[in-house]
Amino acid sequence: MQHDRIRGVLCPVTTPFRSDLSIDPPRFVAYCRWLLSQQCGLAVFGTTSEANSLSACERSMMLDSLVSAGLDTSRMMPGTGCCSISDTVKLTEQAIKSGCAGVLMLPPFYYKDVSEEGLYRYFSEVIQRIGDSRLRVYLYHIPPVAIVGITPSLIERLLKQYPIAIAGMKDSSGVWETTKMYLEEFAKSGFDVFVGRETFLLDTMRLGGAGTISATATVNPSPTYKLFMEWESTEAEAQQEKLNATRDIFNKNYSAIPALKQAIALYGNDAAWAKVRPPLVELTPAQAESLASELKKAGFEMPDWGRTEIGVEI
Amino acid sequence: MQHDRIRGVLCPVTTPFRSDLSIDPPRFVAYCRWLLSQQCGLAVFGTTSEANSLSACERSMMLDSLVSAGLDTSRMMPGTGCCSISDTVKLTEQAIKSGCAGVLMLPPFYYKDVSEEGLYRYFSEVIQRIGDSRLRVYLYHIPPVAIVGITPSLIERLLKQYPIAIAGMKDSSGVWETTKMYLEEFAKSGFDVFVGRETFLLDTMRLGGAGTISATATVNPSPTYKLFMEWESTEAEAQQEKLNATRDIFNKNYSAIPALKQAIALYGNDAAWAKVRPPLVELTPAQAESLASELKKAGFEMPDWGRTEIGVEI
Repeated sequence: MQHDRIRGVLCPVTTPFRSDLSIDPPRFVAYCRWLLSQQCGLAVFGTTSEANSLSACERSMMLDSLVSAGLDTSRMMPGTGCCSISDTVKLTEQAIKSGCAGVLMLPPFYYKDVSEEGLYRYFSEVIQRIGDSRLRVYLYHIPPVAIVGITPSLIERLLKQYPIAIAGMKDSSGVWETTKMYLEEFAKSGFDVFVGRETFLLDTMRLGGAGTISATATVNPSPTYKLFMEWESTEAEAQQEKLNATRDIFNKNYSAIPALKQAIALYGNDAAWAKVRPPLVELTPAQAESLASELKKAGFEMPDWGRTEIGVEI
Repeated sequence: MQHDRIRGVLCPVTTPFRSDLSIDPPRFVAYCRWLLSQQCGLAVFGTTSEANSLSACERSMMLDSLVSAGLDTSRMMPGTGCCSISDTVKLTEQAIKSGCAGVLMLPPFYYKDVSEEGLYRYFSEVIQRIGDSRLRVYLYHIPPVAIVGITPSLIERLLKQYPIAIAGMKDSSGVWETTKMYLEEFAKSGFDVFVGRETFLLDTMRLGGAGTISATATVNPSPTYKLFMEWESTEAEAQQEKLNATRDIFNKNYSAIPALKQAIALYGNDAAWAKVRPPLVELTPAQAESLASELKKAGFEMPDWGRTEIGVEI
């Protein structure tokens, strides 16, 4: 099965908001179109997308806006995992109907210390309600944020029961040893492991991984895709180092999501892009200036990501 | 202001599900009607209610079912805090329009390590969007589950800006020293502190608290209300001890929410009530039997909670 499935670099696209914090479909569509043109797929509605700060209805409208704009849904893996089975099923059904390659599914993350049996029942209930042979679920393991995680034995149990629907995972543990463990345990059987930070992209590819779904790829798509394609080349190590340096700029001294949005605002001359929804907070002017200077110093570049499509002048 | 506000024992009513996990309004209404008849208020859609395992739409329908059935909404404090401001505002607006006494509001709980500024902006944005002088927000502090908590300095800042809308809190830290701190810092100024477990009800009343919003009160409403009313009597200590013993049965050897539902099923001869939504899991038959025997041994009783209203025979 795995060769039919989506692979490569998927971007957890940041979500643009208007000044009143409402969603901004034109900016979103333009940005997504640009990321596709950079050969990346779209993991819309992830952690970086502030997806849990959106209502299910807002997520649904945003996916509709991508479909209406004619963007290629076969290169999309929207996040659909909510605390409630009802919302998860609704969003997942929409993703399948829209032709999406798969869905990235958080475990229900409100209750802590839940049993593996409870999580199994959650995913099982969702898969059975959907009841569609096109369903491809990618389990989303992000314990630093969700706290509730996806254990190897849960994957094993789900894979045994749903070998087609359970297609892979995103490991955002942030710990290479953990990603390595998932790769070694499951990649050979055709379970697709995407690593949650491109820092480990080369290592992931070497162990048979499917690619990366990484926040920074949203502002640095082309170089990330290049490494995905050329990981066996002699240039790979140097490319990986360059990706790491860029990632470090966004993550070391700033809150990552506001910093990514600030970069899009800066390089697109489009201040609106910096807006985040509470509980996140935009960078301070001083932080924004310091980020700009670090990026400039590192020679960071972003091509026109479609700002001309929405009428932003440069 | 505080004397106009809701006080006493509020029950975070468990949510009944049909065998297909859909919500079951008739059982819900009957149970809520019974709790009101026991002099308790209703903190529907709390943690014990599995509220985050419901979609916003399901919560909305359930509140509507209470209103349609003519239940007294002035004794209700529905949980309305979601990760997304959009959902929180929608549910809160409905609660106000329905005449609810207030709303119990979780902080947005997906992102961890968020700043106080971010949480302030979240609550502030909600209050401003609602823009209704009838709004009474009770901040919901439950760090063992939500991880994201409500700090004293956040309360201070919110109270300063919104002295009418910020009416109080529920402290489910589970730590008496923490509840005491909130009471000592804020109760005198008219900020209503409800303690999240009735174990601390007597101590809370002695320090000027407003009552309790406690899971066990949902199956043990009358004795809990009695202590609230008689906390200054010589019987109070003994009453408190008896409440604690009952609570211990549900919490010590069982997962609390499934155990509460199992008790309702058992004492109402209504097996349907035991159902929980994943990721929670029902008690095993052996656990259910052991719970029944412990409750019997302790002389635990539950009057007819309205099962006759929905046609359950005994």
